[in-house]
Amino acid sequence: MTAPDRSILKRAAAVRAVGEVQDGMVIGLGTGSTSAFAIEELSRRVAAGLKIVGVPTSERTRLMAQQQGVPLLKPGDRPRLDLTIDGADQVERGSLDLVKGAGGALLGEKIVASASDRMIVIVDDSKIVERLGKATPLPVEIVSFGWRYTVDRLTALGLRPHLRLVDGKPFVSDAGNHIADCHIDEIADAAGLEAELSSLVGVVETGLFLGLASTVIVGRPDGIEVMQR
Amino acid sequence: MTAPDRSILKRAAAVRAVGEVQDGMVIGLGTGSTSAFAIEELSRRVAAGLKIVGVPTSERTRLMAQQQGVPLLKPGDRPRLDLTIDGADQVERGSLDLVKGAGGALLGEKIVASASDRMIVIVDDSKIVERLGKATPLPVEIVSFGWRYTVDRLTALGLRPHLRLVDGKPFVSDAGNHIADCHIDEIADAAGLEAELSSLVGVVETGLFLGLASTVIVGRPDGIEVMQR
Repeated sequence: MTAPDRSILKRAAAVRAVGEVQDGMVIGLGTGSTSAFAIEELSRRVAAGLKIVGVPTSERTRLMAQQQGVPLLKPGDRPRLDLTIDGADQVERGSLDLVKGAGGALLGEKIVASASDRMIVIVDDSKIVERLGKATPLPVEIVSFGWRYTVDRLTALGLRPHLRLVDGKPFVSDAGNHIADCHIDEIADAAGLEAELSSLVGVVETGLFLGLASTVIVGRPDGIEVMQR
Repeated sequence: MTAPDRSILKRAAAVRAVGEVQDGMVIGLGTGSTSAFAIEELSRRVAAGLKIVGVPTSERTRLMAQQQGVPLLKPGDRPRLDLTIDGADQVERGSLDLVKGAGGALLGEKIVASASDRMIVIVDDSKIVERLGKATPLPVEIVSFGWRYTVDRLTALGLRPHLRLVDGKPFVSDAGNHIADCHIDEIADAAGLEAELSSLVGVVETGLFLGLASTVIVGRPDGIEVMQR
């Protein structure tokens, strides 16, 4: 399937998810190409009179939402979020556990999703896996200070970490950290791996989103599939 | 005991610790008032011909060491550290587990100590406790993005977190994070608390240093006490 075709599937999933949004909600706004379609659709509904407040998961999303007239939370506010709509790199069938972070915004995405009553994940069908792991690297956000030591520790755990580079320089996240993209095999025990990684000195957050997605909306060539946890 | 008297005890512990430093070593340099005495003593020995390389745990320590002529690691190098010398807010008798972070540098201190073969902790006798917890708050470094949600999560765990402020504004660490000073009772299960806190979304690192100190040198009015793990 070509990239334009994938875009059609992503957009279909995004539009369906935004259909869940109701007046008065506080909405977490994901980051990435699929989330961009959700912001576009939210913007259309806001222009038509929908009253919501958005909470962006990244600087990139903040700018995009602002440009499209989506009202955003004022800094310092702390409402409970009703719903976060975001994409994913991998979705495990059954558990609805996720791998996220290819776009580099996993920290903001995880903080916002964790503060939300519900998380709807929107993907095209290429993102669905039987078991998390192999399909894409697991991004791990690490402190820039002493990152070489942290990468050594990830290697010692049996992962194959590669520091993410942009134009030959370490990628810098919104929070000023780096990202180690960890090549791994199928993950047998995601909760165990998450606990192990979280306890590593120098690790800020991992791209494992466990127990956070309540619904996954999948754009398929033959229509929309909705998975509930 | 007055502050000048405490300084005498801190300096005595620092000088004794620097006595362990030998030619060719790579030394982690702690942050805080007791570590400052260690850097002063290292500087004196370097001027007298000692060949070492220092790895600062904070920007503050980096400046102090530079001003005093202590050679520092070049960015990009990643040797194994032979020894880190650093202070602590609390030292638990027996386990030698620590609470650190009152100075705001816990992240760099933990990364450097974790990369070191040995850690010598230098304190005056007021820092020794029978059980970690009550004496001083437990500093927890948290991501600035969404910090209010993270503070809520710390409260939900039963801690009493207070965001650290400087001149009425949130304290910002070298890595750009905030610190929640958590008031707690005696800690019954430090490893359990550490695991619980590490797994919280938004927590970067805690001030619990478990199993890291190999030696604690205590300045007492009646002399030096050395505790080995």
